[in-house]
Amino acid sequence: MIDSFTGPALLRASAMAVFAVFAAGAILGAVRPAMAEARASHFKLGNGMEVVVIPDHRAPVVTHMVWYRVGAADEKPGKSGIAHFLEHLMFKGTEKIAPGDFSKIIARNGGEDNAFTGHDATAYFQRVAKDRLPLIMEMEADRMENLRLLEKDVLTERKVILEERRSRVDNSPSSILGEQMMAALYQSHPYGVPVIGWEHEIAELEQPDAIKFYQRYYAPNNAILVVAGDVTEAEVRKLAKKTYGKAKPRAERVRDARPREPKHAAPVRVTLEDPRAGSATIQRYYLSPAYSSAEPGEAEALELLMKVATSGTTSRLYKSLVVEKKKAADAGGWYGGSGLDSGRLGVYAVAAEGVAISEVEAAIDEVLADVRENGITQKELDRARMDAIASHIYGSDSQSSLARRYGWALASGRTVADVESWPERLRKVSVEDVKRVAQKHLIEKQSITGILLPVEKATKRSKKGNDEARKS
Amino acid sequence: MIDSFTGPALLRASAMAVFAVFAAGAILGAVRPAMAEARASHFKLGNGMEVVVIPDHRAPVVTHMVWYRVGAADEKPGKSGIAHFLEHLMFKGTEKIAPGDFSKIIARNGGEDNAFTGHDATAYFQRVAKDRLPLIMEMEADRMENLRLLEKDVLTERKVILEERRSRVDNSPSSILGEQMMAALYQSHPYGVPVIGWEHEIAELEQPDAIKFYQRYYAPNNAILVVAGDVTEAEVRKLAKKTYGKAKPRAERVRDARPREPKHAAPVRVTLEDPRAGSATIQRYYLSPAYSSAEPGEAEALELLMKVATSGTTSRLYKSLVVEKKKAADAGGWYGGSGLDSGRLGVYAVAAEGVAISEVEAAIDEVLADVRENGITQKELDRARMDAIASHIYGSDSQSSLARRYGWALASGRTVADVESWPERLRKVSVEDVKRVAQKHLIEKQSITGILLPVEKATKRSKKGNDEARKS
Repeated sequence: MIDSFTGPALLRASAMAVFAVFAAGAILGAVRPAMAEARASHFKLGNGMEVVVIPDHRAPVVTHMVWYRVGAADEKPGKSGIAHFLEHLMFKGTEKIAPGDFSKIIARNGGEDNAFTGHDATAYFQRVAKDRLPLIMEMEADRMENLRLLEKDVLTERKVILEERRSRVDNSPSSILGEQMMAALYQSHPYGVPVIGWEHEIAELEQPDAIKFYQRYYAPNNAILVVAGDVTEAEVRKLAKKTYGKAKPRAERVRDARPREPKHAAPVRVTLEDPRAGSATIQRYYLSPAYSSAEPGEAEALELLMKVATSGTTSRLYKSLVVEKKKAADAGGWYGGSGLDSGRLGVYAVAAEGVAISEVEAAIDEVLADVRENGITQKELDRARMDAIASHIYGSDSQSSLARRYGWALASGRTVADVESWPERLRKVSVEDVKRVAQKHLIEKQSITGILLPVEKATKRSKKGNDEARKS
Repeated sequence: MIDSFTGPALLRASAMAVFAVFAAGAILGAVRPAMAEARASHFKLGNGMEVVVIPDHRAPVVTHMVWYRVGAADEKPGKSGIAHFLEHLMFKGTEKIAPGDFSKIIARNGGEDNAFTGHDATAYFQRVAKDRLPLIMEMEADRMENLRLLEKDVLTERKVILEERRSRVDNSPSSILGEQMMAALYQSHPYGVPVIGWEHEIAELEQPDAIKFYQRYYAPNNAILVVAGDVTEAEVRKLAKKTYGKAKPRAERVRDARPREPKHAAPVRVTLEDPRAGSATIQRYYLSPAYSSAEPGEAEALELLMKVATSGTTSRLYKSLVVEKKKAADAGGWYGGSGLDSGRLGVYAVAAEGVAISEVEAAIDEVLADVRENGITQKELDRARMDAIASHIYGSDSQSSLARRYGWALASGRTVADVESWPERLRKVSVEDVKRVAQKHLIEKQSITGILLPVEKATKRSKKGNDEARKS
């Protein structure tokens, strides 16, 4: 019932999916709704809870989301996985709702619900007919304050999560590699800890850990309500006051600042040989600023840089590696800029049959070096910008992605104004800006390169992977 | 005045020194004094402070050490460097002693003093004439309880430490690489954080951080007194009661358990190109158990494995790489087993002129693969064991290394009995044990490989270091 989105790097089976999701994350966080009536209104309840209302009267349905400003990067050392664990436990019941009934009630009312956990935020959402909104808000407000965490439910759910980890991470070589890359990339910042948690730490999470985390972070003054759909601001305001408005704010609600990354001095490489892997693939991440941490204009320039250089079949990377040189079966990249503290630039490629992964890597390096040295053209920039703005406008047609966009932004350090000024800010990016951020952020010592090699167990060498070139 | 030993991997200029120190660490922690009279006695004061007395009547001098069971691995995230910082601040004075006078008083009394901080322990020690022992004990007990931490002193010392970091780490390519390797190796455990701290975090440490750390960890029930020298147990007991015995124990004294490492799935590589580097070098670490965390007999077998395979000019590694193949100018290795939570196996080599580092690595891999597959001979084992025991016996001649041995062991999870039974335990190791631990712990996915390449700035490529082989 609960589809936990626990960090793209670890819970998607294929490299492709990973990057698609990342790109989506960046998009979701930062675009203005296109629908004429979709201007969001934003206000606070007396207890500090923020509310965003996005009217959309095309159909009598609403998307209701509650976002908490807490995620896996707020966990204490040794307690990895507790944010995601608690997300599961939020479905266990309250005084009014029996364990497991939350989603059943919503389904019985013709709705659907879900939840996800990231490094920076945890969100719960439902999509229901408009007239069921009061019920949903009452239920969600109830579990914000009155969650019942019985020890037996916690222990049962722990098994579920361990199984989730096994199926999503341990069964997927690319997820394993992604996890190892993140862990090796982040020397200090908790983005290096997987959202789902390390297995041995999940296995030791207990009822008091969940209660402590719940009591510390689940409070109206640490939450954002986003309602998109066939409602008016006035309606939502009234309902919100009646439901969430009754919840007591907590004194200590702002999360602690996370440790910042030290300067990186040397590039890192991780090589995973796994007989279950498909083709040989290469992934590379570069540490970069995020929208919320970048200097003015830098994140927007990174966004367009990565679109031109790496995103889609018209990108330089794809054209060079797949179309012209035929060294890769697929290639792409993304800017992941939606994090609270920092972002990443990503590139990947799947080796074409018979091509050594070192050749693929050299071809990637060539494309990136060219962009760093010579920048991109005005025409490329214009097209990428137009595509970006257009696809975000299309994205605005989806009620739920619109709601996510605002929720994600507000939960990770940005404002409603940031969301709405995004196309305008994209329009200001120049080719010089793109070249400058390429030179500043596509730098080797800030990078980690992950190589995934399909190796037959029988022929697996006992030696080091230095001779990657001989394989694939 | 304060020579801070803040983790060998980061504060020694040359790769050689790094490994020498590591090896020493392992040795220090685990040997029985050879002198007939040097049997240590061990007791506790009423306030929980442990005392070890090691009589040594060859000269009228004493070595006095106080060890606290706290180190850099006990720092809170974002507060790296505070353990070492506090070690510096312990010389700032009390009500009775003016700032900076501590060491002056000792020097005026003909003694010398020092201190060091590691990941697991912080220690203060003095060497003085026997009749000055009461004075020293009074002064050390005084600063255990009555340290005065003025804001201005904290800020001044912070500059000193930042300068220390610059000169010891940032000016040394091998220290930089070592730091990056540790950070990339430890995915979760704080051994990945440098003892001296990350620069940006040191820069933000303030008086309240130091006070908090001092108050939490500096207490008699978290300390071990070691006195070696021309004293009897009765003398020390009497003096200890009179000085340390008066200090109040604190309720919360045992450090929290540190996060454990998750399973590693893939080997990691870090390549640093630095024009200041001398020859091209390779270092590799394998995560392993420590004496305090290993299954019975495993640490002892690892100790002898690494001696036979890598330690000294008679080791397999040296003979193969330096003597026979002439691929390396130097080569060696060590078992670092003195940590509280885990240990490391290390190997390194310096490329001979004109030899590519990838060739050197292949030669290392060959030696290690052979040991894993075929083990070592009884003769090799016997000689390594004899050497180990002998050199520890010689080490026992040094009063201060004897004192350190006990202090280090007790501060990092071992007992006096562990220290004293070590030669006996070494004697039980068989060639089968060695082969078994080689197969179990010299495994690729538990490893990180660091490559240091001297590259002229002028010729530094902008591309990836995949073609290491072409260089050096």
